[in-house]
Amino acid sequence: MNLTRVLIYGMGLMGGSLALSIRGKFSDAEITAVVRSEKSKKTILTKNLAHKVFLQNEMGSPEWSNYDLVVFSTPVESILKIIPTLPKSGNTIFIDLGSTKETIVSAVESHYTNVTHHYISTHPMCGSEQVGPEAAVPDLYVDKLCILTPPKFSSNLSLDWVREFWEKIGSWTMEMDSKSHDETLAYLSHLPHVVSTLLVNVAGENPVTKKEVMGISKPITGGGFRDMSRIAGSNPDMWISIFKENKSFLRNSIDDFIKELSEFRELLASDDSFDEDKIRKVWELALANKEDIRKTK
Amino acid sequence: MNLTRVLIYGMGLMGGSLALSIRGKFSDAEITAVVRSEKSKKTILTKNLAHKVFLQNEMGSPEWSNYDLVVFSTPVESILKIIPTLPKSGNTIFIDLGSTKETIVSAVESHYTNVTHHYISTHPMCGSEQVGPEAAVPDLYVDKLCILTPPKFSSNLSLDWVREFWEKIGSWTMEMDSKSHDETLAYLSHLPHVVSTLLVNVAGENPVTKKEVMGISKPITGGGFRDMSRIAGSNPDMWISIFKENKSFLRNSIDDFIKELSEFRELLASDDSFDEDKIRKVWELALANKEDIRKTK
Repeated sequence: MNLTRVLIYGMGLMGGSLALSIRGKFSDAEITAVVRSEKSKKTILTKNLAHKVFLQNEMGSPEWSNYDLVVFSTPVESILKIIPTLPKSGNTIFIDLGSTKETIVSAVESHYTNVTHHYISTHPMCGSEQVGPEAAVPDLYVDKLCILTPPKFSSNLSLDWVREFWEKIGSWTMEMDSKSHDETLAYLSHLPHVVSTLLVNVAGENPVTKKEVMGISKPITGGGFRDMSRIAGSNPDMWISIFKENKSFLRNSIDDFIKELSEFRELLASDDSFDEDKIRKVWELALANKEDIRKTK
Repeated sequence: MNLTRVLIYGMGLMGGSLALSIRGKFSDAEITAVVRSEKSKKTILTKNLAHKVFLQNEMGSPEWSNYDLVVFSTPVESILKIIPTLPKSGNTIFIDLGSTKETIVSAVESHYTNVTHHYISTHPMCGSEQVGPEAAVPDLYVDKLCILTPPKFSSNLSLDWVREFWEKIGSWTMEMDSKSHDETLAYLSHLPHVVSTLLVNVAGENPVTKKEVMGISKPITGGGFRDMSRIAGSNPDMWISIFKENKSFLRNSIDDFIKELSEFRELLASDDSFDEDKIRKVWELALANKEDIRKTK
């Protein structure tokens, strides 16, 4: 597998970590980074993440065909602006690291209508509370899932190449169409982040809880709350961007969750009703679902 | 601090771990355990958790005054049945490890109306997914919070003694009245367990998510879902008992959570509305609440 010239467009935690992985796996690859801020540029040079770094306004529109592989690792909104400017011929392979797929894949399919192309959308699933190239680590993608979403008219060779690329980086891969991706991720990732964040606010807004919590210097919580609140309020820019792209599925998942909560509430509805058997069934179902989803059986 | 004869009534993970801690800290203490099953009895003897073990039906009603300290570590419902049988005089100190306080404290206050007594309700906050005396460990209570709830008419000396006892075991302590305890715990512990469990079910019941999840052998989820689902479906007997005792506050917390979810949903309500500023405020509020509650500032 040959890789000599790579452009990483946007180099935060994810792009920077990918640069480190590429340097480890493809020793011939020359990496060029494009970033927005002087601060990122300095960090990238200090950490030796890329061979060349340009600010967006220094470079203007890149000469895409100079590269074997172009990786978009900016927020989805800005990827959507670049896609209509991509060349309709040449051998450059384009991938992105976007957390939502439908808007990107639609943009690619509109741009390349009836034209074979080399754009494969990818989603390496490896979050972190940390941000920026200063947090880049070489093993971020190792043993993580990378979802591959080939738009219409993408060449099979590109898909094979991109799969092999991610597997060489150390990820395991699966294919998903863009709608299934966004719906699945709404339930397995986006809704959990909303729920964690709101759970912390519900607790913080209860006056009695607030009073007790503020009255001592150590946490009242056990491991349950600690786990349930770890991702609360993290990385607002990233999540606002994800919610914007995926708001329809996220809305559905919130509706489903409200329905489930309302039904559970009825099991403890009044002083005389307490449906132990049904609560037990909810608990058993959760154990089964947890094993299916987390593959812990 | 003197402790020679201890009765631990009910010896699962919590009672067994307390027995190990007591053996480490009070070398003179002779520990008697009362359990329901032959299996537990065998485990306790094999693990050397107690000096003497009786089955409930072997012992009948214990001679409470034979002990310096009696620890109730059975489900709250069975503690509620024992409280009316406790002696109204003597120096035996009674504590329980119950996860809810209002029903226990009411029972104690009804039993000891206008009588000074030595019953202090306590709640060491150290959950675990594991159950049974076979899971007992000596450091379960070290550096954990133990909430002390003195009922009316309990002697101040008993409260001081119980505080000192838990601190010697390695916990740090705070006092809380029974209502504040149950309301605070609804928000910081009981609601999070409900939410984790229902979140897993919402994901498992979405057909697209289910299909994708069942289609591969590795988990699609990242660290967010993993953390958010860790406590899902755990320990149904314990949780059903807690929900039964605390259903009124739990119901309120579920209502608050549904309200918060519904408001958040409105921020992504229709194709034209997406209130980025308000989402950002929700996220910022969560960070502040998280710091207050987890004391991570």
